[in-house]
Amino acid sequence: MTPHLAQVLAKGPLFQQLPPKLCQCLISKAQPRSYGRGAVICLQGEQARTLKLVLDGWVKLYRLSGSGEEAVLATLQAADSFDEVAALQGGISQASAEAVSPCTVLHLDLQAICACERAKEHLQAAVLHMASHHLDGMMAQVEGLKVQTGAQRLTRYLIDLYEAEGGAIEFELPFEKVILAGKLGMKPESLSRAFARLKPVGVSSSHRLVSIRDMSKLRAYAEATAA
Amino acid sequence: MTPHLAQVLAKGPLFQQLPPKLCQCLISKAQPRSYGRGAVICLQGEQARTLKLVLDGWVKLYRLSGSGEEAVLATLQAADSFDEVAALQGGISQASAEAVSPCTVLHLDLQAICACERAKEHLQAAVLHMASHHLDGMMAQVEGLKVQTGAQRLTRYLIDLYEAEGGAIEFELPFEKVILAGKLGMKPESLSRAFARLKPVGVSSSHRLVSIRDMSKLRAYAEATAA
Repeated sequence: MTPHLAQVLAKGPLFQQLPPKLCQCLISKAQPRSYGRGAVICLQGEQARTLKLVLDGWVKLYRLSGSGEEAVLATLQAADSFDEVAALQGGISQASAEAVSPCTVLHLDLQAICACERAKEHLQAAVLHMASHHLDGMMAQVEGLKVQTGAQRLTRYLIDLYEAEGGAIEFELPFEKVILAGKLGMKPESLSRAFARLKPVGVSSSHRLVSIRDMSKLRAYAEATAA
Repeated sequence: MTPHLAQVLAKGPLFQQLPPKLCQCLISKAQPRSYGRGAVICLQGEQARTLKLVLDGWVKLYRLSGSGEEAVLATLQAADSFDEVAALQGGISQASAEAVSPCTVLHLDLQAICACERAKEHLQAAVLHMASHHLDGMMAQVEGLKVQTGAQRLTRYLIDLYEAEGGAIEFELPFEKVILAGKLGMKPESLSRAFARLKPVGVSSSHRLVSIRDMSKLRAYAEATAA
């Protein structure tokens, strides 16, 4: 890992919770692994062994229902992490993870604790912070799934993406539409209908390319349909 | 609080994580409060101050969306707790809580730590355990909302309730159908349709009374629709 990348990561929510020395120590022992698109990173129900921290690319967290249907829980990018609690306590992964683009994931062994002072205590606090952060994210997602329509969830997602992209009016979706549909809790055909519903407010899309003609119109739509 | 109740509670997931002495100490300082149906227990966005542990009755955890629509996140009963992380760290409640039946809730102040040995460390581990437990529950809920139909979620709920009731074929729903609809992520009219869909497999309901004529038929339906 380059010193630059380590620096970037240290600003992420996990390492921000740790003293710099413990941070450096963990990173120095960590194993970065590269995955091709579609590669399995870990499987629900198996020993987690490590905390996984995404360095680049996109990762899909998902669960398989009893019927074998896939429920996308989250899409993760650089500085996002998962399996924190399981890695700390020696438990199993609560979801499977798959690379949806070529990606690099840093594997951190939380049980091989070094001689850093009060390392266990600091790690526990950091893991609690992350668990609380994930819990809040999942609660927000349950809220969205229960009270918003698919078109409203898509609108929210596009506004967030627009802001993350620094206000570009044309951008590429970070992953395929079938994954976006799963993430937003829709069938692919419902996602197509949701995109069609946004056409009158200036959103058009072709494959992964999306353009937003008038952001204020899209925001107005978001507010009007929420009201 | 009666010694019996304290004993029952000590078997719940929170206190199981704590040494008996710390358990007793926390319980001795805790404040039980009674709430009438519809009373507010705490509000999303306000200082949490305490960990809340349900002693009896039913509590609804919910969020209000931007449009003022209510998303029920969970329904809680005796031995269930919430606001653990916020109480430990002095943060805000991530959801509102309301009594949906008359209920008693024990308020535990995690910051007024007694002289018990390594109290903070034990509390942190217990809170992490609970956060992880809630996270898993929310992930399971996201999974259900994304891959199951309303009728499938209702079927799963009825099977769980049947088992919790010790196999009774006729029982009362613990709260009103409008709350059940919110919990399962449906509009009340969709819940009525879901109940109607279960009629051919022997489920009938009138107000809060539900009867299941043939449990094996309902289980078969659950499996057939999941396949």
